[in-house]
Amino acid sequence: MRIAKVLGTVVSTQKDLSLQGTKFLLVQRVDHEGQLLPEYDVAADCVGAGVDEWVLVSQGSAARQLPEYSQRPLDALVIAIIDTVSVASGRLYSK
Amino acid sequence: MRIAKVLGTVVSTQKDLSLQGTKFLLVQRVDHEGQLLPEYDVAADCVGAGVDEWVLVSQGSAARQLPEYSQRPLDALVIAIIDTVSVASGRLYSK
Amino acid sequence: MRIAKVLGTVVSTQKDLSLQGTKFLLVQRVDHEGQLLPEYDVAADCVGAGVDEWVLVSQGSAARQLPEYSQRPLDALVIAIIDTVSVASGRLYSK
Amino acid sequence: MRIAKVLGTVVSTQKDLSLQGTKFLLVQRVDHEGQLLPEYDVAADCVGAGVDEWVLVSQGSAARQLPEYSQRPLDALVIAIIDTVSVASGRLYSK
Amino acid sequence: MRIAKVLGTVVSTQKDLSLQGTKFLLVQRVDHEGQLLPEYDVAADCVGAGVDEWVLVSQGSAARQLPEYSQRPLDALVIAIIDTVSVASGRLYSK
Repeated sequence: MRIAKVLGTVVSTQKDLSLQGTKFLLVQRVDHEGQLLPEYDVAADCVGAGVDEWVLVSQGSAARQLPEYSQRPLDALVIAIIDTVSVASGRLYSK
Repeated sequence: MRIAKVLGTVVSTQKDLSLQGTKFLLVQRVDHEGQLLPEYDVAADCVGAGVDEWVLVSQGSAARQLPEYSQRPLDALVIAIIDTVSVASGRLYSK
Repeated sequence: MRIAKVLGTVVSTQKDLSLQGTKFLLVQRVDHEGQLLPEYDVAADCVGAGVDEWVLVSQGSAARQLPEYSQRPLDALVIAIIDTVSVASGRLYSK
Repeated sequence: MRIAKVLGTVVSTQKDLSLQGTKFLLVQRVDHEGQLLPEYDVAADCVGAGVDEWVLVSQGSAARQLPEYSQRPLDALVIAIIDTVSVASGRLYSK
Repeated sequence: MRIAKVLGTVVSTQKDLSLQGTKFLLVQRVDHEGQLLPEYDVAADCVGAGVDEWVLVSQGSAARQLPEYSQRPLDALVIAIIDTVSVASGRLYSK
């Protein structure tokens, strides 16, 4: 999984029917030192994450493991809102 | 998913039979600030996207979740035409 | 999918039994402006592509969607020989 | 698989229910010469790896092959704690 | 698939039970001109490849297509030992 920060939302009305009701978040990746990377994902959200929160994003078929997402053409999913990231030298992030 | 801008089309007559009738779009990736990236995908299209429109592209097995695509050797699919991309500071894109 | 140009072939006699009869092509990726990239794939071929032809390459589980390839440990497949790549400003490639 | 060094942990209380009890490790990738790379994964742990240990990380659907992980939206798993990495010129790493 | 050169081995005793008896090779990727790249994989071996041999490596779910590997959390497999790589200008590699 990747650590990412929620930047905003992507809205679409013209999409595959299976995607009705899917919320798409624009998330920017964070590196292992807590710095923002010039990389992003648009990920479906199943945890109700809000702007500026740090989240875990799963990619690939992992995004379709939850029963309600299993038939949707998704390749990225926000699976958790992060509370803390801890390394040997201390807290990298705390919500 | 990735945000991308439709550049054009790729046409092939000599292809696997399962691909008859599949429309292939050439799409250029857009970054999280709305800038074009030097990266692209050739993706099947299930939403009727046109040149210059911004779309969401799913990669990998996500491209084969729709029943009519399930047996085709595809690894990228345009799943939505984007209306808006919104971040904290405002609209990054509006159709 | 990626656009690629066929460079040559890879031959192996010592391989998994399921790969008997599989033809492996060495293909170099082409970017969205028609330039060769310093990236390649070794892909199985199901369309009879020849050296210098431009092809579409699918990656990942897409390479195992055709019945005859479904049990082989393949992660890349040439799925089509390209006739034309067209963008707003004209033809990027014509066979 | 990738060789990686365990840096720390990621904790989340607000997550998909299937992830209850899943331990998330922050691991930094190591290259083929034993140097740390500026790349990381957040991976589930099934072997009880500790900080500073070198581990093997599997990505993608490989992370869901163990029965207890099969329904979780995971895309990375620590599958082994490394004892040694040996190359022609000697030991690259020994635990 | 990727062309790679076998560098050595990775040994682990503390690993998922399904991996008992799996041999892990450290392989360095080779580019389309035959040069070594600063990229590697740790791949399971099903063909008995030795140090310095050139091999084909499949990634992702391809690594679990062989019956004996189907339940193991693997994302890379050496599927063939390469005899020759041939391009228009001649032999890039011959075993």
